[in-house]
Amino acid sequence: PPYLPSTVVNTTLRLQALREAMSSVNVSAYIIPGTDAHLSEYIAPRDARMAFMTGFTGSAGTAVVTLNKAVLWTDSRYWVQAERQMDCNWELEKDVSISSIADWLIREVSDTDNIGFDPFLFSIQTYESYSYNLVPAKLMLKSIPDNLVDGVWTDRPLIPPDNLIRLPDRVVGRTWQMKVEHIRTQMTDNPYKPTAVLLSALDETAWLFNLRGSDVPYNPFFYSYTLLTLNEIWLFVHKDRVTEDLKLYLNSTCFPLAHCVQLLEYEQVRVMLKNYMTTSGVKVWIGTEYTNYALYELITPEKLLTSAYSPVLTTKAVKDETEQRILRDAHVRDAVAVIQLLMWLEKVVPEGKETEMTAAYYVNECRSKQKDSRGPSFETISASGPNAALAHYSPSNATSRKLTVDEMYLVDSGGQYLDGTTDITRTVHWGIPTDMQKEAFTRVLMGNIEISRTIFPSGTKGVNMEMLGRRALWEVGLNYGHGTGHGVGNYFGVHECTIALLIVVSLPEPGYYKENDFGIRIEDVVVIVPAHTKYGHNYLTFETVSLVPYDRKLIDTSLMSPQQLQWLDNYYLTIRELMGDELDRQGLTEEKTWMLKHTVPFQSATASAAVSSLSLTLTALATALLHILL
Amino acid sequence: PPYLPSTVVNTTLRLQALREAMSSVNVSAYIIPGTDAHLSEYIAPRDARMAFMTGFTGSAGTAVVTLNKAVLWTDSRYWVQAERQMDCNWELEKDVSISSIADWLIREVSDTDNIGFDPFLFSIQTYESYSYNLVPAKLMLKSIPDNLVDGVWTDRPLIPPDNLIRLPDRVVGRTWQMKVEHIRTQMTDNPYKPTAVLLSALDETAWLFNLRGSDVPYNPFFYSYTLLTLNEIWLFVHKDRVTEDLKLYLNSTCFPLAHCVQLLEYEQVRVMLKNYMTTSGVKVWIGTEYTNYALYELITPEKLLTSAYSPVLTTKAVKDETEQRILRDAHVRDAVAVIQLLMWLEKVVPEGKETEMTAAYYVNECRSKQKDSRGPSFETISASGPNAALAHYSPSNATSRKLTVDEMYLVDSGGQYLDGTTDITRTVHWGIPTDMQKEAFTRVLMGNIEISRTIFPSGTKGVNMEMLGRRALWEVGLNYGHGTGHGVGNYFGVHECTIALLIVVSLPEPGYYKENDFGIRIEDVVVIVPAHTKYGHNYLTFETVSLVPYDRKLIDTSLMSPQQLQWLDNYYLTIRELMGDELDRQGLTEEKTWMLKHTVPFQSATASAAVSSLSLTLTALATALLHILL
Repeated sequence: PPYLPSTVVNTTLRLQALREAMSSVNVSAYIIPGTDAHLSEYIAPRDARMAFMTGFTGSAGTAVVTLNKAVLWTDSRYWVQAERQMDCNWELEKDVSISSIADWLIREVSDTDNIGFDPFLFSIQTYESYSYNLVPAKLMLKSIPDNLVDGVWTDRPLIPPDNLIRLPDRVVGRTWQMKVEHIRTQMTDNPYKPTAVLLSALDETAWLFNLRGSDVPYNPFFYSYTLLTLNEIWLFVHKDRVTEDLKLYLNSTCFPLAHCVQLLEYEQVRVMLKNYMTTSGVKVWIGTEYTNYALYELITPEKLLTSAYSPVLTTKAVKDETEQRILRDAHVRDAVAVIQLLMWLEKVVPEGKETEMTAAYYVNECRSKQKDSRGPSFETISASGPNAALAHYSPSNATSRKLTVDEMYLVDSGGQYLDGTTDITRTVHWGIPTDMQKEAFTRVLMGNIEISRTIFPSGTKGVNMEMLGRRALWEVGLNYGHGTGHGVGNYFGVHECTIALLIVVSLPEPGYYKENDFGIRIEDVVVIVPAHTKYGHNYLTFETVSLVPYDRKLIDTSLMSPQQLQWLDNYYLTIRELMGDELDRQGLTEEKTWMLKHTVPFQSATASAAVSSLSLTLTALATALLHILL
Repeated sequence: PPYLPSTVVNTTLRLQALREAMSSVNVSAYIIPGTDAHLSEYIAPRDARMAFMTGFTGSAGTAVVTLNKAVLWTDSRYWVQAERQMDCNWELEKDVSISSIADWLIREVSDTDNIGFDPFLFSIQTYESYSYNLVPAKLMLKSIPDNLVDGVWTDRPLIPPDNLIRLPDRVVGRTWQMKVEHIRTQMTDNPYKPTAVLLSALDETAWLFNLRGSDVPYNPFFYSYTLLTLNEIWLFVHKDRVTEDLKLYLNSTCFPLAHCVQLLEYEQVRVMLKNYMTTSGVKVWIGTEYTNYALYELITPEKLLTSAYSPVLTTKAVKDETEQRILRDAHVRDAVAVIQLLMWLEKVVPEGKETEMTAAYYVNECRSKQKDSRGPSFETISASGPNAALAHYSPSNATSRKLTVDEMYLVDSGGQYLDGTTDITRTVHWGIPTDMQKEAFTRVLMGNIEISRTIFPSGTKGVNMEMLGRRALWEVGLNYGHGTGHGVGNYFGVHECTIALLIVVSLPEPGYYKENDFGIRIEDVVVIVPAHTKYGHNYLTFETVSLVPYDRKLIDTSLMSPQQLQWLDNYYLTIRELMGDELDRQGLTEEKTWMLKHTVPFQSATASAAVSSLSLTLTALATALLHILL
C-alpha cells in the first residue's frame, strides 16, 4: 500500500463501497453535504458523513463522488486543513457556490445521468439552487431518502442512549400545553387556514414541549420532528429514550387527543406525513428556512403554506416575563465565571505559562461549577495578538499562542444553563496598550454603549441600529467587517435566527480588527425593555444583562460623551449590586474585591457627576469661572 | 339637460365619443392612467387625459371606461375633490391598487373580452401587474399605441412651440460628447455587451445633451427619447423646435456618425426601434424603472438587457466638480430669496394681512429676481398651524390660512436655476412658541445636524443614516412618518431617483407633525465631500449647501451636545461669509443685517468655544473650580 501521512484518512475502501451503492441505485454522482436533517448549526458525530467519506473534519464543505472522481468543496478557512486531511482519492475545489459544484457536475457527468442526493440533508433552498443549475443541462437530481454513506459506514456512531429530560418547572414560563394552544391560535387566525404545522428544526420541538437532550454539540437538543394539527399532536423521537414519567408529562396515552402527544418513531416522519397528505382538505404550514427537502417534497403545492420561519420560531423569539427573569439569573452566575477567568489571567499571565488553550479551558471549568450549568454554548474563541484579528478563530494545539503582557487578548465564550444561554466577549490588555489600541477599544465601547442606550419605537428593525455601533469608529476612519448583533435563546442555539420586529434578546457586537496585530470585540447580551419617554408610548430600549466590567486600562474617557460615561457608570453600579450579592453568596471574596476595583465609577461621585448630567449649564458656569481666573 | 353644479365637468359627450372609438378597435374596457409617456413626476396639460375624461384634476388616479360604466380610482387625499369635480357618469373607487382595478374589470367585463390601454402610459411594472391579475381570469390586455382619448380630445393643448435651449458653457461640467463617450465605455465594459442604450425618461436625454426645455411643469425638460449605440446617436424630438444653431451644436449633419446626433421626429421612436431590432446581433440596454411599455414590448427578450436604472441615470447621480461648484452658486442666490421671505414675514405677519398663499407668492417672486432663475422646482408648501401637519399640503384659496403670531409656519420651497435645483424647508414662529414646540423643533434640528456631521465610509447606504435623523426625537417619544432624504439634481427633478452608493447630493429631512396643531420640518441640500480621518481613507461626510439660518427662537440649546452646537456655529459662520458677500453684492443691506442677527454664534466667541471643543478637559477643570468655590 502506498505511504500515507499520519494526518490523512485512507478512503479507498469506503469510496469503493459507496460507488457500488451508487451503481445499485443507478446514479453517476452523489452529493454529500456537511449538514444534518435539521439544518443544525452544530452536527452530531453520526451526521459527520462528509468527514467520514473525505477525512476532512472542518465545519463547512460539500463532497461529491462520481464513479471515477471524488471532490471536496470548502472555503478558504479550511484549504490547508483539507489538504492535510484528505488522501489522494480526493481533489479540493475552492469556489464553494452551488453553481460552481453544478458546473463541475455538468462537465463530469453525461447528459441525462442521475445525480443522487439525500433529501434530508438538503434545505429547500439548496435543492432549488442545484435544480436551477442542473436542469437546463439535462442532468436529473434523484432524491434517495436512504443515505448511501450510512449504508457503507460500518462503525457509524449510534444514537446516544440518554433519555430526554424535561425542564424543571422553576425555569418554565409557559407549559407545553399553553404553547401548543398559542400556535393553534395562530393557525386558526391565519387567512390561509393551515390544518397542521410541521416542525423540522431541533430547537422548535425542544422549545414547544419544554424538553431537552444532548444529541448535538453545544445545543441541548434531541433528534425530533413534530406534526401539530388543530386536534392532534405527533412527536417523532426515538421512543425508547422517553421515560414513563415523560410519557405522563406528555399525556401520551390520554384523551382528548388535542392535548395528547402521540409518540411515533423518529424514522416514521416521512411515512406519517405522506399519510397525512392523503387526507382531503389539509394544508401544512412550514418554515422554509429550516425544513429539509425530504419532507418538503411530500407536500403538494395546493396543500402547502410557507413562511420563512415557522410560527414556533417566531413565537419563541419573543421571551415572556419568566423567560426574561430566569435569563437574567443565568447571566449573573455566568458573570461569576468570566470574572474568575479575568482575575486569574491578570495574576498568572505575567508568569508566562498560560496560553489561549489553557484560558479557554479555565473559563469552561469556571462555568461548569455554576448552578444549572450544561456546558459551553459554542467553542470558546480565546485569541491573543494577531489571532484575535482572524474571523471565527478558535485555538488548537498548532495555533495556540502564549499569553503575554505585550499583546491584547480577546475571549468570546458562552454557557448553556438550564435557565438561559449566555454569550459574552471581552478584550483586555495586561501590559501597556498603545494609544491606537486604547482609541480603537474606546470607540468600540462607545459603539456598544450608543446602541445599548438608544430609545426606539416598537417595530424598529435591528439593521437600523447598525451604524450606531460603527459611528465612533468611522469618525477616525476605522471600521469592522462583520454584522452587529444576533439573537440569543433561552438555553438554546446562540445563533438563533433573528426575526425582525419580534426579537426580544439581541446583542450589540461592535469590534475592530487590525490584521496581523490585534482584534477588539465587545459583546453583551441585552434584553429589550419598555422605555418611559416624555411624550410617547410603545418606546423601547436595551438593558444589558451580561455583567462583566470592561478593561479600564483600555478606556480613554476623554473621547466619550457625558451621556456615554453616565451609561457606563450606571452599568457598573448594576454590576456592583447584582454581582456583589452573588459573589457574597458564593463566598468569593477575592473575586468581589477584583470586581469592585474594576467597577469604580468614572465620574467622581460628587461634583463631576453633577457636571455630567448638567453638562451644558455647567459649561457656561465654567466659562464664567474661567473669566474670573483669566 | 340635467342641472350640473359649477364645480363639475359634463363628460357625457366625450364618453360617448370614446366608447365609439373603443368599439371600432374592439375593446370592452379602456384604461386611462394619469401618467405621461416618460413616467414624469409632473405632467404637461396635453397629457392630462385622465383629467379631461373625468373632470378630476388631482395628481394621482386611474380611470377605466367600459361600454356602460365609467370609474375613477384615486387615493384618500383626493376623494372629496373627485366627488366635487366628477359628474354622474362617473363612480369613485377608493382602493387604488392595480389588483383592485383588475378585480373590478373581472366583474364587469366578459371572459375573453379585450381591455385596451395605451402602452406609452404604462410602466413595465404597471403592465406586468395588470397582466398578472387579468390573465388568470382570461381577460386579454390589448396594447393600442394610438391613444383613444387623444382621438376624441378636440381642443387638446398643442406641443409648446418654444425652441429647445442649450445650457451655457459656464454651467456645463462635461460636454455632451464626453457624456456620450462615458456611457459608451460603460456599454463596452458591460459583460452582456449591449449595442445600444434606449433613454425614455425626459431627464436622461436633457442631461445627456446638456439641453433644456419647458414642456412639463417645474422641470426644465422637453419631449424626447434617445437611442444611443456604439457608433450612432438618434435623438427623437419635435424637429421644428431645434434651431440651426442647435443643429450645429449637436453635429446633426456631420461625419463620423459616432459623434453626430441624428434628429428624428419624436413620434418616430417606435418605428425606429422596431427597425433597429431587426438588425442581427443587437442588444438594447434599458432602465426598467423609466421605460414605457410601448418601447419595451418591441424588444425581444434575447435582445434585451435590463437594469433598474439606465447607465445615464446612474452616471447623472454622481456630480462632477463643476456640477458641485455651480450647484453651490445656485444655492447662494436661492438663499437670498428665502432670507427675503423670512425677513418680510417677520415684519408683516403681526399686521395680520398675509396668508399661506401670499407667502408662497412672495417667495416665488423673490426667486424670480435671482440670476438664472427658471421658476419654482415644485409647488411651494406654505403651511400654518394645523395645515403644516398634513402631508403634501399646498395652499389653495379654499384652505389658505391667515398667518399669525400664534401659529408655527412651515415653508418648503425650491427653485430651478440654470446652474442648479434647490429645495429647502424652514419652520418658524413669530410669537411665543410653547415648550413642546421648542423641544420638538430642537430635536428635529438635532436629527438634521447628526446626519449632516456624520463621517461614514464610502459605500454606506443612505437608509442606514435614517435613524440618526430620528434618534433625538425618539429619546422623548416623538417620531415622524415619512422617509428621510431624497436625491436632488442640477436644474433637474427634485425627486430624482436616489441610487444607493452613487448619490452625491441628498437631503436630510427630519420632521415632527402634531395632528390638528402644527408641523415641523427642516430640510437642507447637502453635498457629499471627502472627510479627512485620523486612520482611514475613503471616508465621506456631508456639507450643507443650503444657506438659511434656523429660527433661533425655536432652538433650546440646553438639549444639544457640544458637538451639535459646534456644528451649528460652523454652519452659521459659513452662512455669514457666503451670504454676507452675496447680499453685499446685491446691495441688500437690510437683508444682511437680518442675516447677521440670526446667525450670531450660540457659543460665545472666546472661552466658551474653547470649552466646547475641549469640553471634557474643561469639564474636569470646571469641577476643580467648583471645588474651590464650594
